[in-house]
Amino acid sequence: MDWQQILATRTQRMSASEIRELLKLLDQPDIISFAGGIPDPDLFPAQAFSDAMSGALSGPKAGEALQYSVSEGYAPLRDWIVGEMGRLGVPCVRDNILITSGSQQALDYLGKLMLSPGDTALVGWPTYLGALGAFNAYEPRYVRFDPDTNRPPESYAEGAEPGRVKFAYLSVDFANPTGRTLDAAARERLLDTAEALDIAVIEDAAYQSLRYDGEALAPVLAREIARRGEIDACRTIYCGSFSKTLAPGLRVGWVCAAREVIDRLVLLKQAGDLHSATLNQMAIAEVAGAEFDAHVEKIRSAYCSRRDAMLAALDAHMPEGVSWTRPEGGMFIWLTLPAHVATVALLERSLETERVAFVPGHAFYADGSGQNTLRLSFSRTDADTIAEGITRLGRLIAAAI
Amino acid sequence: MDWQQILATRTQRMSASEIRELLKLLDQPDIISFAGGIPDPDLFPAQAFSDAMSGALSGPKAGEALQYSVSEGYAPLRDWIVGEMGRLGVPCVRDNILITSGSQQALDYLGKLMLSPGDTALVGWPTYLGALGAFNAYEPRYVRFDPDTNRPPESYAEGAEPGRVKFAYLSVDFANPTGRTLDAAARERLLDTAEALDIAVIEDAAYQSLRYDGEALAPVLAREIARRGEIDACRTIYCGSFSKTLAPGLRVGWVCAAREVIDRLVLLKQAGDLHSATLNQMAIAEVAGAEFDAHVEKIRSAYCSRRDAMLAALDAHMPEGVSWTRPEGGMFIWLTLPAHVATVALLERSLETERVAFVPGHAFYADGSGQNTLRLSFSRTDADTIAEGITRLGRLIAAAI
Repeated sequence: MDWQQILATRTQRMSASEIRELLKLLDQPDIISFAGGIPDPDLFPAQAFSDAMSGALSGPKAGEALQYSVSEGYAPLRDWIVGEMGRLGVPCVRDNILITSGSQQALDYLGKLMLSPGDTALVGWPTYLGALGAFNAYEPRYVRFDPDTNRPPESYAEGAEPGRVKFAYLSVDFANPTGRTLDAAARERLLDTAEALDIAVIEDAAYQSLRYDGEALAPVLAREIARRGEIDACRTIYCGSFSKTLAPGLRVGWVCAAREVIDRLVLLKQAGDLHSATLNQMAIAEVAGAEFDAHVEKIRSAYCSRRDAMLAALDAHMPEGVSWTRPEGGMFIWLTLPAHVATVALLERSLETERVAFVPGHAFYADGSGQNTLRLSFSRTDADTIAEGITRLGRLIAAAI
Repeated sequence: MDWQQILATRTQRMSASEIRELLKLLDQPDIISFAGGIPDPDLFPAQAFSDAMSGALSGPKAGEALQYSVSEGYAPLRDWIVGEMGRLGVPCVRDNILITSGSQQALDYLGKLMLSPGDTALVGWPTYLGALGAFNAYEPRYVRFDPDTNRPPESYAEGAEPGRVKFAYLSVDFANPTGRTLDAAARERLLDTAEALDIAVIEDAAYQSLRYDGEALAPVLAREIARRGEIDACRTIYCGSFSKTLAPGLRVGWVCAAREVIDRLVLLKQAGDLHSATLNQMAIAEVAGAEFDAHVEKIRSAYCSRRDAMLAALDAHMPEGVSWTRPEGGMFIWLTLPAHVATVALLERSLETERVAFVPGHAFYADGSGQNTLRLSFSRTDADTIAEGITRLGRLIAAAI
């Protein structure tokens, strides 16, 4: 036993994420990047945060802002979230809310809470790469989850030992990477399946506020409350985030769930990093309280134009044989190319010739399939650049088909 | 299988920490609290942080300050830490540094990296409660580690399967909870033992900067570099923190270790919460760069007076049969009472009558022993109040003996 083998054991199923490696491409100035799924920094409310932080650090709460605080999170922020969840049809109280360092941390702690090696997690095919990254550390098996179909619940447990299927994880609105939204019937079917299997549901709502058209759908958690009468009887665990609405760099997200779930997660949070940064929670509470709706309206308007520009460019420049999603919100459009076109090789070619970046789709599949798919993000690029980039990409794909 | 059993499985060995429950006592105004091991908020450089944050949020880096960033941490902060580690006798480069959300997160990730259920971790008896909390989630066994004694290395592996002892964890300077410092011979013996067992060493240096007298001792990592020639050949993993020097509420700490260790931890950080808050890292880099030494000198001077006040009061007011440590730094003094005095009951009595809070010592023992010990913190109380509190505590203990 070499001590360095100790290191290898637990990270053997983990590798540096492709997204992260690709983020490095953004620094090259002549690349048009549709790769990173990150907000436009020009839309951050920087002045509001500056004011909120100066206020917190010069007033009577200066000591509190820089001091240790409770693992559950800053009470006024939890209370603001209670109000926001109420607006979404999720009546709850402060004890149903835990503040996390982004929803990524919520996914890590939920994996830590529920998964042992060999357990099964139901996930979309494709699904959010960061969720697979968080769960992989706990060594689960993955089974493809299809709430859009009428697959019988018991089929999801085939091959798993009894009681080893632990949860279904799903991003329900304008999902990363597909941009797809689960319709009302599929949300109800998701709950039916989870009840039949007696497993938890992780509802990833990171993009929930970024709807540009169509009608808002009640969250899965709201639907389960309608069935069961109150949140404390629910199995759905809702993960929210300020990363896509206010600012990701402050690392503030939340979990809204039954008190029993929150109590367990608080133990993990306390053991994991004590609490999220106090000042950041205070600043988010201040800025969200003052201007959340107005700010979200502003970024919705900007991203909506960019989505429209990208859809129009795809219509104009993609060759036959290519299909794509038409998201009602979020940051992503998902392309499916003819089966013989491998998008990893396409990306390499693109970076050499057309200088357009995207994320090859297979990274979002738990089984590494989806070789002919790719993800485009429209959040960080202006309409003219989108048109130019999609023109180039269409040319590249036409040559590859 | 009830789905709620899923929740219970992974947290059965975790419970709300006694320290955390005790923090609630601090809010009662007539209690003199020596319980919480937290800095004095009056000593936080609040104005400097306010200026640093305003600067970051109004300048050309405003977008960067609020945006996603790399998992390794903000490069200028990592570079500042490289300089600081160099001053401590640890030559290293940026790739040897990972920024974490406090050193608590480093302990969590190190447990996650190295521990599987049933593995053995060597820890002090007593040791830092938060380390036990972090490691408990990964279900290790604990073996008492005594580098102060000449115990033969192989004795630490007795009862463990081959290769199942993973690391020795130790706080080496003015440890929480005892205030004790490991002398040079014990540091070398620690390394001898780790080499003989071929395990990692986790050196918790949270209090390293807070030395009030006596001579600074080279970190364990510096000693191992002296043996092996370079950090990348070392098994010692150094965990540093800004929580005790600048401000805990910003949640910024670091790990300094061989590149191979850092690379693995970066994977866990990326899967765990993507990165620590960007703005916070920028602000810490700015404030540390401008005034770390001057600020640390200021808090050293304040805490030194309080330690002296507490030692003088203990000398004056403790009855015979009570012994205590005389720390050269940090925040804690450790009391050992006669074997028949249980400090949990003593605390209950104290809160009813004398209104003085402390932490019963058994919480710091992996096996729950140490029933007749207690921890006092002098960091948050002025000298007069310390004198009054220790007078009361001496009266209480005299009555209990």
